[in-house]
Amino acid sequence: MSERMHNFSAGPCTLPLSVLEEAQAEFVDYQGDGMSLIEMSHRGKQFVAVHEEAVELVRSVFGVPRDFEVLFLQGGATLQFAMVPMNLLGEGRKGGYINSGSWGKGAITDAQPYGEIYTAWDGAQCNYTRMPKSGELEIQPGTRYLHITSNETIGGVRFRDWPQVDVPLVADMSSDYMSRPIPWESFDLVYGGVQKNLGPAGMAMVIVRKTAIEDNNRNMARYLRYDIHSDKGSMFNTPPVFPIYILGKVLKWMQGRGGIDAVAREAEAKANILYQTIDTSDGYYHCPVDVESRSVMNVVFRLPSEDLEKTFLTQAGEEKLLNLKGHRSVGGCRASIYNAMPREGVQALADFMATFRLAHPG
Amino acid sequence: MSERMHNFSAGPCTLPLSVLEEAQAEFVDYQGDGMSLIEMSHRGKQFVAVHEEAVELVRSVFGVPRDFEVLFLQGGATLQFAMVPMNLLGEGRKGGYINSGSWGKGAITDAQPYGEIYTAWDGAQCNYTRMPKSGELEIQPGTRYLHITSNETIGGVRFRDWPQVDVPLVADMSSDYMSRPIPWESFDLVYGGVQKNLGPAGMAMVIVRKTAIEDNNRNMARYLRYDIHSDKGSMFNTPPVFPIYILGKVLKWMQGRGGIDAVAREAEAKANILYQTIDTSDGYYHCPVDVESRSVMNVVFRLPSEDLEKTFLTQAGEEKLLNLKGHRSVGGCRASIYNAMPREGVQALADFMATFRLAHPG
Repeated sequence: MSERMHNFSAGPCTLPLSVLEEAQAEFVDYQGDGMSLIEMSHRGKQFVAVHEEAVELVRSVFGVPRDFEVLFLQGGATLQFAMVPMNLLGEGRKGGYINSGSWGKGAITDAQPYGEIYTAWDGAQCNYTRMPKSGELEIQPGTRYLHITSNETIGGVRFRDWPQVDVPLVADMSSDYMSRPIPWESFDLVYGGVQKNLGPAGMAMVIVRKTAIEDNNRNMARYLRYDIHSDKGSMFNTPPVFPIYILGKVLKWMQGRGGIDAVAREAEAKANILYQTIDTSDGYYHCPVDVESRSVMNVVFRLPSEDLEKTFLTQAGEEKLLNLKGHRSVGGCRASIYNAMPREGVQALADFMATFRLAHPG
Repeated sequence: MSERMHNFSAGPCTLPLSVLEEAQAEFVDYQGDGMSLIEMSHRGKQFVAVHEEAVELVRSVFGVPRDFEVLFLQGGATLQFAMVPMNLLGEGRKGGYINSGSWGKGAITDAQPYGEIYTAWDGAQCNYTRMPKSGELEIQPGTRYLHITSNETIGGVRFRDWPQVDVPLVADMSSDYMSRPIPWESFDLVYGGVQKNLGPAGMAMVIVRKTAIEDNNRNMARYLRYDIHSDKGSMFNTPPVFPIYILGKVLKWMQGRGGIDAVAREAEAKANILYQTIDTSDGYYHCPVDVESRSVMNVVFRLPSEDLEKTFLTQAGEEKLLNLKGHRSVGGCRASIYNAMPREGVQALADFMATFRLAHPG
């Protein structure tokens, strides 16, 4: 067994080691049943139990009210970019969108064919370095929902405070899903890929207010309809068995860590270690994001030059600090520190940043 | 480690034991990299290599011509029920469909909102006990494709000979994917969930002729467009990492078994063991499907009474012969004997059937 790396990948990304070890131990022979869980019928009692437990864990850990449905779907957050407007818009119902960066923009692009879409705030004006304040939002009459990206994985920008508006929020939470509690009364629907905080790639989790799908659009294929998935208990067709199984284990691990409030505090603490390192570096490290909008999941930073960034990434790799390269569309460095990243990993990075700065003055 | 069961589940279903053991061994620490493959970025060199190898294995094992694209998508065959007509139909292009049972019917239902759809042959007239002959098909002018379900998982009916028509075929091959070679010149697109012959649940594989997507519909969300997935090398968004990885291992296992021709011969041999047991039982066991349309993947059969079927299923379970219950919509018994079901498993079932019949005369 090799030494475990500190993996700062933006997703798929580090998962709790104990979860991986448990899954490995029971991978070929699940609970003494003489076969792997991934070989079992999704209608069989073993998987149905796994599925139901995962739903209940989502509810309890995330505090999901009973008037919301929890759906495990496929196609990633990207397919939800389409399903949200397909289901919720229609005659006289507009979708307001916040363009907060790459993912906000993607949501707008994919919504266009399915309804009347408008941009309620455009981050292009500030080069996507902050989220809007509620007072800046331009909500049009007839708006069915305001779509937000709670955390922009690439830009490292997040909503610290939720928008206060008089329309329901719909949120893409892919990169900060279940990293903090949310005020459910403000939301009609939240969704996200699970491959950051919650499990392996290959699943989106949609949590939707039941009244929001009572009259969703029905003139489309069944897979695209929330009401169908809801009626079938999220088992309309063969579900993504393995991600659901790992999700359940990750949520139990979260419970063991003290639940979502404890996880949220830990996330803030971890992020602060890095932002402090950046802010006390006399400008050697620089975070382009406004302080109030800084992500606690994806910490982006620059060095004095691209050459130094290259050297930084190489030397970090030699210290088992991996996948710190910023997204190819923006460059620089990025440390993704999702729930499963241990504080020691973050501290090791901060220590390396301090050492590197001394060794390579700008 | 418990004794391994004979698992006749219709899907998810039995996988090669060697594949499961390999995946288990490297699950926590992939190739000495100090992390699990499911923790790695899908853009990183390790997963990109896994992805590319899987595509090449599909090409070589299935004999896919170079003018077809191989796409790994999410949402199962069910989402393809929608994506096929969304992409390929439009003004003046009709979709002809064969209603051969539950899945053929599902494909028709989900296609309706996206174009002009008609039924070219309806199996309801014979209670879905056979597939049509080419001469029975009513192809209308302006037909873009004829959609078939190559094997009906629930009814146990398959196309032994492919329809001879002068329009391209589109096939849902979920339950006999890569169980036999196909004449690519007749097809524009084949698709299927991988959770029968090829891997775990959570992925659909679409193999599409490049010219068929040159002018596919573009006025829709990106996830739903074949041209987008094709342009991005099937990595438009985060792919289903784990199913792709297992798929690659299953295909290597197939190569080791002699490739698809050998696998096809073995499938026929396994099915024959069961059909012979049925046909030589003096009517004790009965297969409702016409001999020429009998599936080699899903062998359905009845016993003289529902009471005897119940006893049969219980006693089979005691002999490690599991998941032989027919689909709830049709009842009876069904043995799904996909590629990874060893011949010994099939022989054990046949032996049990013979013994049961003597012990429980009708």
